[in-house]
Amino acid sequence: MTIYLHDIPLPQAISRLEEALQATGKAGVLGYEEIPLDEHALGRVLAKPIWAKLSSPHYHASAMDGYAVRSESTILAAPTDPIDLPIGSQAQYVDTGDPMPKWSDSVIPIENIEPVTEGDPSRDMAMRLTAIRIRAAVTPWSHVRTMGEDIVATQLVLSAGHTLRPVDLGAIAASGHASILVARKPRVAIIPTGSELVPVGRPVQSGDIIEFNSIAMAAQVMGWGAEATRYPITMDNFDQICRCVNEAAIEHDLILLNAGSSAGSEDFSANVVEKLGELLVHGVAVRPGHPVILGMIGEKPDQIPIIGVPGYPVSAILTGEIFIEPLLARWLGRSPNVPLAIKAKLTRKVTSTPGDDDYVRLAVGRVGDQVLAAPLSRGAGVITSLVRADGITILPRGTQGLPAGSEVNVNLYRHPVEIESTIFVIGSHDITIDILAQFLAVKNRRLTSANVGSMGGLIALSRGECHLAGSHLLDPESGEYNLEYVRRILPNLPVKIVVLVERTQGLLVAKGNPKGISSLRDLTRNDVTYINRQSGAGTRVLLDYQLRLLQISSEIIKGYPCEEYTHLSVAAAISSGRADCGLGISAAAQALDLDFIPMYQERYDLVIPVRYFEDPLLEPLFEIIADPEFKKTVANLPGYNVEMMGQEIL
Amino acid sequence: MTIYLHDIPLPQAISRLEEALQATGKAGVLGYEEIPLDEHALGRVLAKPIWAKLSSPHYHASAMDGYAVRSESTILAAPTDPIDLPIGSQAQYVDTGDPMPKWSDSVIPIENIEPVTEGDPSRDMAMRLTAIRIRAAVTPWSHVRTMGEDIVATQLVLSAGHTLRPVDLGAIAASGHASILVARKPRVAIIPTGSELVPVGRPVQSGDIIEFNSIAMAAQVMGWGAEATRYPITMDNFDQICRCVNEAAIEHDLILLNAGSSAGSEDFSANVVEKLGELLVHGVAVRPGHPVILGMIGEKPDQIPIIGVPGYPVSAILTGEIFIEPLLARWLGRSPNVPLAIKAKLTRKVTSTPGDDDYVRLAVGRVGDQVLAAPLSRGAGVITSLVRADGITILPRGTQGLPAGSEVNVNLYRHPVEIESTIFVIGSHDITIDILAQFLAVKNRRLTSANVGSMGGLIALSRGECHLAGSHLLDPESGEYNLEYVRRILPNLPVKIVVLVERTQGLLVAKGNPKGISSLRDLTRNDVTYINRQSGAGTRVLLDYQLRLLQISSEIIKGYPCEEYTHLSVAAAISSGRADCGLGISAAAQALDLDFIPMYQERYDLVIPVRYFEDPLLEPLFEIIADPEFKKTVANLPGYNVEMMGQEIL
Repeated sequence: MTIYLHDIPLPQAISRLEEALQATGKAGVLGYEEIPLDEHALGRVLAKPIWAKLSSPHYHASAMDGYAVRSESTILAAPTDPIDLPIGSQAQYVDTGDPMPKWSDSVIPIENIEPVTEGDPSRDMAMRLTAIRIRAAVTPWSHVRTMGEDIVATQLVLSAGHTLRPVDLGAIAASGHASILVARKPRVAIIPTGSELVPVGRPVQSGDIIEFNSIAMAAQVMGWGAEATRYPITMDNFDQICRCVNEAAIEHDLILLNAGSSAGSEDFSANVVEKLGELLVHGVAVRPGHPVILGMIGEKPDQIPIIGVPGYPVSAILTGEIFIEPLLARWLGRSPNVPLAIKAKLTRKVTSTPGDDDYVRLAVGRVGDQVLAAPLSRGAGVITSLVRADGITILPRGTQGLPAGSEVNVNLYRHPVEIESTIFVIGSHDITIDILAQFLAVKNRRLTSANVGSMGGLIALSRGECHLAGSHLLDPESGEYNLEYVRRILPNLPVKIVVLVERTQGLLVAKGNPKGISSLRDLTRNDVTYINRQSGAGTRVLLDYQLRLLQISSEIIKGYPCEEYTHLSVAAAISSGRADCGLGISAAAQALDLDFIPMYQERYDLVIPVRYFEDPLLEPLFEIIADPEFKKTVANLPGYNVEMMGQEIL
Repeated sequence: MTIYLHDIPLPQAISRLEEALQATGKAGVLGYEEIPLDEHALGRVLAKPIWAKLSSPHYHASAMDGYAVRSESTILAAPTDPIDLPIGSQAQYVDTGDPMPKWSDSVIPIENIEPVTEGDPSRDMAMRLTAIRIRAAVTPWSHVRTMGEDIVATQLVLSAGHTLRPVDLGAIAASGHASILVARKPRVAIIPTGSELVPVGRPVQSGDIIEFNSIAMAAQVMGWGAEATRYPITMDNFDQICRCVNEAAIEHDLILLNAGSSAGSEDFSANVVEKLGELLVHGVAVRPGHPVILGMIGEKPDQIPIIGVPGYPVSAILTGEIFIEPLLARWLGRSPNVPLAIKAKLTRKVTSTPGDDDYVRLAVGRVGDQVLAAPLSRGAGVITSLVRADGITILPRGTQGLPAGSEVNVNLYRHPVEIESTIFVIGSHDITIDILAQFLAVKNRRLTSANVGSMGGLIALSRGECHLAGSHLLDPESGEYNLEYVRRILPNLPVKIVVLVERTQGLLVAKGNPKGISSLRDLTRNDVTYINRQSGAGTRVLLDYQLRLLQISSEIIKGYPCEEYTHLSVAAAISSGRADCGLGISAAAQALDLDFIPMYQERYDLVIPVRYFEDPLLEPLFEIIADPEFKKTVANLPGYNVEMMGQEIL
């Protein structure tokens, strides 16, 4: 095992690749191809400018249905002194688009003429028409589209490097071209390696990893205008990987070798690149995804670049954005993609390794007057952080991190309209919130939720960081939900409290309840490990309240300090054997096929500042809460009661 | 000929179509299809939400290369008091991603352990390792990706109606799906009709119109996520069109019948729709493109919508944007596209028919502190207005128009970054400006030019409406170019004057000079028609100056009042026989295969305010002017001299 990995700054990595590309003549457009001008040219990049071969119109054309005339002959026409122009020599009928007769220079629209007829009135008017009578002069070239009015032959229609839109195809056709020269599509080979990988659709065992990076990377590459070839999974075997890379190199312009780019015992990528060519870079000072490999393989001058892409999905996608998109852009001769950037306020502090450019994905939304950016999970393996990311911010090398409230520059992944139509929910998690999100999506609203527990939600409200909070905080004195806490935590914020649902809390246990758990008293047993919710969570408040009633000290409960942030995470901990039981909702038990011991009925409310209560942003949310379809869906969840749904408590 | 056409307001037209769609059950998603989860799912729209079938990770996975341990056994470890954990029972090597042994709950990274070995030191270390020595306790679940950390089975991963991005494909795979249910692509038939139409690539005669609408519309439809079928051109024949529509109706969800939607003698679309189904709307109060037809064809309940699309390209494209995109969006179950909107200041007044919603395309760019919107040619046939449009603004019904300087809401067609990288050039036109635009495109700058003559350019500069002006204004007193005019028109604006090129002005005449024109004196001949440039144009100033020297009165010149705005338009007028000669540049003569009688040498300068002279926006422009490649390209134009190119006159 050789340790190559040594992170170098990103600009240095890029310039090493740049030099190698220059040396092999691969720093610009890879090649051209002539394609027919039709709808399939959409999205292709022009390799040469389009100069008009034909004018448009390419003849003087009537712009109206009417009569072509010589403007000279109309000069004396006046309302009380009309002129008759005989059909044939001085007036000729033209439809819109018809070429003008040589002798004519104007069109009089049909609605502006009076017909002069002779002969049997029962015959068709057109046959009897001998002249047109007009009562106004016309100026030369009126109602005529003169030749070249739109495009003059030889003028520049479109520049090279332009990505073709529908309207461009029309303009190119109008200017006399039937085919166009476009940059040929770069061909990208994507080779997934790893003995632990299984293809999508195959049943998985513990230790198996579903190979999906190649799908996401192929889609990235296609979206950037290149062609992607996905290779089958190659085992962690040096010779096999070499063979596969060599084969791919024949037909492709770029090879992406996914995973094995680090310096572990089964990481062969760097050795493969060294053997088959030249290792330029092993390690780039970016997070996530620092174990990137850049190299050239094959013999000069026919070398092609190879990129060793890290295995974690967040790293792989970032490698695409940083290295692959700009490379494909230059090979296509187009400008690299530039994200739309906005300023936003961080809701939480972020830490950063000062030696790296740190890429932090964010959920972004407008709450009141502020655009907020909530940092998402930083784990390189957390693919949902990619799905949920509305934008990304870069903490450059030398930055230690940023405190909450900092203004950051966010490169958006979404349309700003989506950002503006985002409802930020922070607080306790309930499955009903997921269902609400699904119903909201149909009504052009996006619901972004952060699960920080009921108390966390009320605190976020007090800081103006969300539109509403989900809360189920039991007041031990009154037995009331939420009211007391709202008064205490939000004394100056006028809010409404709307019941979302009533639900049953109880103990989640493994299927068949192997440890025979039946009440909270069992939590004190030595052979029982509990999995807790974080403090501030409504379920935690409930547990602590009930433990106090039972006079059980939390100190003797095994696992009590171990906290999860959602019901589903508690269920997952039990399902995986990490714990034996946890307090939670029945829906979470059902979701992961656990048993459930019902214990308490509780209310789950939405706490909504009055200022948002009447905001058009939230309107669809109230429509949904009143929608019988939604009620039915929620009522079908085990342990859920929708009778009070929508009632205003405050 | 029946006159149906009666414009109704847009919302009314939309609601008539809506009712008809509701009645036939075609108001929502047309149908679903199950497709494999691979890169080709990119851009498809989810028909059902994705709920996770599998957690991710689906087992507790090591997050590092290292040793799996029980955290309990490490509690007493301290720097000076290490603990040895024997390999096998208490420590087991794991690679990143490996499943955790059942008995373990933490990983100690390999770099944090000391190996404890026994036996022959020449043997492989792995063979000799008996225990790991650690000097710090580890907390439970450290360096472990716990099951469900990213995705918990049953959670909502993506909502229905979501358009799939590369990262979504990864998340769907990770959550245990191998196929997905997406909205099936709507099938759109596009039928071009018109006896005057010729397909792309066929030689054109006077009166022929190249049929390109179907290409642009098919590309639009594809870009919006549907499938397009382009039919061959159908003649203006009622029965033929009926046959074609009937055939198309069998396999398609929507028919677009292009042209023939108005009320002229050869406009059959409305009759066709009436015969084959139901005419809902004929005429919508929008400009351009009011003769829109909306209808349903076939027998209830299997009716499908048909749209009669007006023939002018600007109208056809707008019909797509207004009617077709929202319809396809609903059939796909996604939100309709929402353009990015910005505010901009109109550079010129626009007039509007008060009865219509008026759609005005605009060139948009930032000049100094202002975002400016210059209205483009309003002609429905001007396809270059589609290509050049950076955005569109709507003057709603009831608006008479807007004065110059009004703030308008612009829906952008381009990325705001492109708007910010636009160089606005207003003034005299020279072919060198087209070539400059082509060179700038490679350097990520867009050059947008409006040709209003030299004087118009200086006035635009004085109003802060452009970054630079092209000017060739001869001062009759001094014989100097531009200096005097700049002093007079821009007394308070510090500017630089940079020579772009010297060029020859002369008379453009038809090939072979059939009228034997040799000097300006021939302009007074009765059989000679002149085509003039607009007043304020440098060429016009030159003409008037030379006529004065020759003591020729402009009143006796036939065609003198007839003005064109560019050299190429003058050439086009002569090429088409509209005029016999015009003053202009030799390049324009060559472009349209005219003869050229050289007469005067003149200088064409760029006038640039000092504040933009050092703006990074214009930097590439100066690089190009200094680039020998550019000089060579311009020098190759007939009658061009680049010796002075780049010299600063002021």
